[in-house]
Amino acid sequence: MNALPEWLRNYQPAWLTGDITAGVIVSVMLIPQGLAYALLAGLPPEMGLYAGILPLIAYAVLGSSMTLAIGPVAVTSLMTASALQPLATSGSPEYAVLAIHLALISGAMLLVFGLLRLGFLAYFLSHPVISGFISGSAILIAVGQLKYVLGIKVDGTHVLEILWALLRGVPQSNPVALFIGVGSMVFLLWARRYMARALTGLGLPATLSGILAKLAPVLAVFAACVVVGVFRLDATAGVSVVGHVPQGLPSFSLSVPGMHALGQLWLPALLITLVGFVESVSIAQSAALKRQERIQPNRELLGLGVANVASAVSGGYAVTGGFARSVVNFEAGAHTPLAGVIAAVLLALVIATLTGLFYYLPHAVLAATIIVSVISLVDSQTLKEAWQYDRADALSLLATALGVLLLGVEAGILIGVALSLGALVWRSSRPHMAVVGRVPGTEHFRNIERHAVQTQPGLLALRVDENLFFANAAVVEEKIESLLKADPALRRVLLICSAVNQIDATALGVLTHLERSLDARGMVLLLAEVKGPVMDRLRSTELGQRLQGKVFLSVHEAFLHSGQFSMESR
Amino acid sequence: MNALPEWLRNYQPAWLTGDITAGVIVSVMLIPQGLAYALLAGLPPEMGLYAGILPLIAYAVLGSSMTLAIGPVAVTSLMTASALQPLATSGSPEYAVLAIHLALISGAMLLVFGLLRLGFLAYFLSHPVISGFISGSAILIAVGQLKYVLGIKVDGTHVLEILWALLRGVPQSNPVALFIGVGSMVFLLWARRYMARALTGLGLPATLSGILAKLAPVLAVFAACVVVGVFRLDATAGVSVVGHVPQGLPSFSLSVPGMHALGQLWLPALLITLVGFVESVSIAQSAALKRQERIQPNRELLGLGVANVASAVSGGYAVTGGFARSVVNFEAGAHTPLAGVIAAVLLALVIATLTGLFYYLPHAVLAATIIVSVISLVDSQTLKEAWQYDRADALSLLATALGVLLLGVEAGILIGVALSLGALVWRSSRPHMAVVGRVPGTEHFRNIERHAVQTQPGLLALRVDENLFFANAAVVEEKIESLLKADPALRRVLLICSAVNQIDATALGVLTHLERSLDARGMVLLLAEVKGPVMDRLRSTELGQRLQGKVFLSVHEAFLHSGQFSMESR
Repeated sequence: MNALPEWLRNYQPAWLTGDITAGVIVSVMLIPQGLAYALLAGLPPEMGLYAGILPLIAYAVLGSSMTLAIGPVAVTSLMTASALQPLATSGSPEYAVLAIHLALISGAMLLVFGLLRLGFLAYFLSHPVISGFISGSAILIAVGQLKYVLGIKVDGTHVLEILWALLRGVPQSNPVALFIGVGSMVFLLWARRYMARALTGLGLPATLSGILAKLAPVLAVFAACVVVGVFRLDATAGVSVVGHVPQGLPSFSLSVPGMHALGQLWLPALLITLVGFVESVSIAQSAALKRQERIQPNRELLGLGVANVASAVSGGYAVTGGFARSVVNFEAGAHTPLAGVIAAVLLALVIATLTGLFYYLPHAVLAATIIVSVISLVDSQTLKEAWQYDRADALSLLATALGVLLLGVEAGILIGVALSLGALVWRSSRPHMAVVGRVPGTEHFRNIERHAVQTQPGLLALRVDENLFFANAAVVEEKIESLLKADPALRRVLLICSAVNQIDATALGVLTHLERSLDARGMVLLLAEVKGPVMDRLRSTELGQRLQGKVFLSVHEAFLHSGQFSMESR
Repeated sequence: MNALPEWLRNYQPAWLTGDITAGVIVSVMLIPQGLAYALLAGLPPEMGLYAGILPLIAYAVLGSSMTLAIGPVAVTSLMTASALQPLATSGSPEYAVLAIHLALISGAMLLVFGLLRLGFLAYFLSHPVISGFISGSAILIAVGQLKYVLGIKVDGTHVLEILWALLRGVPQSNPVALFIGVGSMVFLLWARRYMARALTGLGLPATLSGILAKLAPVLAVFAACVVVGVFRLDATAGVSVVGHVPQGLPSFSLSVPGMHALGQLWLPALLITLVGFVESVSIAQSAALKRQERIQPNRELLGLGVANVASAVSGGYAVTGGFARSVVNFEAGAHTPLAGVIAAVLLALVIATLTGLFYYLPHAVLAATIIVSVISLVDSQTLKEAWQYDRADALSLLATALGVLLLGVEAGILIGVALSLGALVWRSSRPHMAVVGRVPGTEHFRNIERHAVQTQPGLLALRVDENLFFANAAVVEEKIESLLKADPALRRVLLICSAVNQIDATALGVLTHLERSLDARGMVLLLAEVKGPVMDRLRSTELGQRLQGKVFLSVHEAFLHSGQFSMESR
């Protein structure tokens, strides 16, 4: 029975109540969120619902998080829209097919990355860059939804263009839509801050009150549906509504993108993959830590991969772990992905029978739920903290956020990746290095700049506290050359490798060149404290051959060997 | 007079002979190379010559290398062609304007990077990736030139398409062009291998023979001009020739790209910038080391930046340091950039008076010089060495080379950057960590897996041998959590920071979260051996506040403090 996931093999009856409760609540949340995020992605409403069924079941089989709630989320919906809007008319069948292809390509990428065990990709982005990206996207999403709250049509793709059009459009706004939209926003903001407290005040248990408060969007949606339906506000007041949502389960079909679509979609798919994975892992991680569970990034790649493929073959679009639903899922008592499976089954039942209920759902209330939920993602706290702690980190946060807002989500995330990686290369290109001498009367060697130590005339003993590889090999060579230039009496260079766990091909080349160049000038390169595995690989190289008899177990031995035994105090 | 470059302020008369000799020889080399590389870039021949004048003078003012020979080079010419061919018809005025814009944008990028002191960008690419990129480009260039040797027209942009068209075109080849092309190639290959030896055999000094052998392409070009001119082979045998090259110095003009061009050109410009900079620095570095001089990467950025801007305003295209010319410049005795200034002045004189000489220059001989010079760039040695030393490095070399050949230079360099950075993140995400215990009877602490040491019940002492930052902070946290899970008796976590020189905002967040989460479980986080600068920044943070009284100077002190003074042997 090893084909069954571990959580299912070890399932304990005591978990069932929690999993069922959480599954029911998450399915109720999934309905307005699925409809709203599909609207945000520019897709027909049913695609948002379809994305909440099969992906949850697929993730339950392969994912490693017990409480991550998979499905459509705000940021990947925005990224889907921003990737597809230049390629097709939103709402058109071609647009929907491209969205499915995007999910399929992203799913395939996740699976390939998972099979190649590239879970470390989650570390490509620093926390400030992620924070900047999420904040920028949240503002972009909120601005994009305002037109539904105002009940007007707005053209334009750039955020400034949209803002300007909104400003000009205010006089034409639909008063009823505006009332519903603003009313919902006020209610949702109130609910977020005070509803749990109010319900506790009415005598409800704290956990239940918390969960009910999280369901406020469902209440708003329901109330709006009833009001619009009863007064037929769609016809009488021109309130824009969701309209007909096809009833029945999604049909399965595999639509494989051609070379042309692949060429257009691989980069956005890669960015959605990266962002979705990073977001998912960090949500899953923080939940897992609370229960002493473990997230395996490589397993997460596989879990998210099958979830996206499952979404693509069942008429959905890109999915990943959602923050709000995961928190509710956890708090409502979910112990295993069975909660997700239950949510999926319930959602499937709703789609099979009750889509008629959504006909009168006004776009204004959906937009209000999106705006209120993304506004909480705008994270000024991280900016404030980063500004105080590390100005460079704060600036990359701002650059990423502004990049998303002014240049678009793809440019924003690329700027973020570039800044994160730039910081990494910059850091790696400045390894800590210390010229060392002997602590008098001992066999210990310490930094000559920090300790009173003895050096040996003619010997340069340099310790490099970092692996030697392409990002720093040239810097180490430069450091040695400049030290040699500063003291023409130096004849022997001792490289202390106690902190060197790896030497890559670039660094090997640099060391080989250094050894030869020293040799040509009548000088010698010596090594000390080379780690076993490093030495094993070095031995068969040209450098290894040339260094025979010049590699010492300890710095002390190298000092003893270096000609003059008397060491003068510096 | 601080406005004068340092080399000019300290100029010694003894250097003059060498600088003049080198300047003359480099100017002679620049003529066929400028014409050939312009052909390769798809530009009119004079642009290759213009790129050899003002950029050399501009570099002399700001660059930091004494012997780097700036000008048009093969790889950036190929990259120019590959960037512009989708945008305009090669040879058209629009194409030439785009090439000028490309140089201008690249120059501006270099200047900005230099002002921001981003010289560490030179370390973005590992040596195997650079080698793979150059080898792939060299093959691509050689294949692209074969049509001139055969004297046929070939359509197609993909290398396989071109090869197929060449194969089919062989029967239509122009026998005279073929004779000139193949004859030049045989002569040039002979000259590279045997000419220096032959000249030494005739009694010439070794250095002079070496330099004359390097001038073989000039000889080939001259001979071909004479033969074609005397027999009017362009008219009688249909040999394709350079034709009319406008006489006179380039005129100055600043053509600024519009937003549309910027959008099309920024990525290729960035790649040309990166490749040109890396190539230049490595050529300059190897020459500087021979004379104990120093290259300053940030100064090089400025030098190359003004050189490219100078090229753009004087009708040239992207320039960088060239390998062959730099070697000749160095060997011919250049001591300062004055050699480059002299070369520029001489080339200007030729352009002002003698362009008529190039009329009969057959394309076949230019192609032959390109092919022979790039073939030596194909570097199987690095592949062989990398394959033996580090399979992963060898595979990134091959992936980059194949990427260039099959997907194009831009995709190739992006694959290379991705592989280099992927390796860096992967390495950084696996920091060396050791659980340590006390060496009995001492105050030394060592890895419990390698030494017989004493541990303290309930205390986890973990040493992390790496800066803590976004690429590894989560990994360190995971390691601690999994160690805690493995031993439920643990109550105190001691993080030994002796190798931590930096903690970025992401790692600070992770540590803050870890401390709180331990606290919530009734456990304690302790730090030891935190470096001064790291502690200074930590102190004002929330974590610093919470850790008061829990940071110890040494691991020994932390062990003594940790409740139980008796340490049991493990």
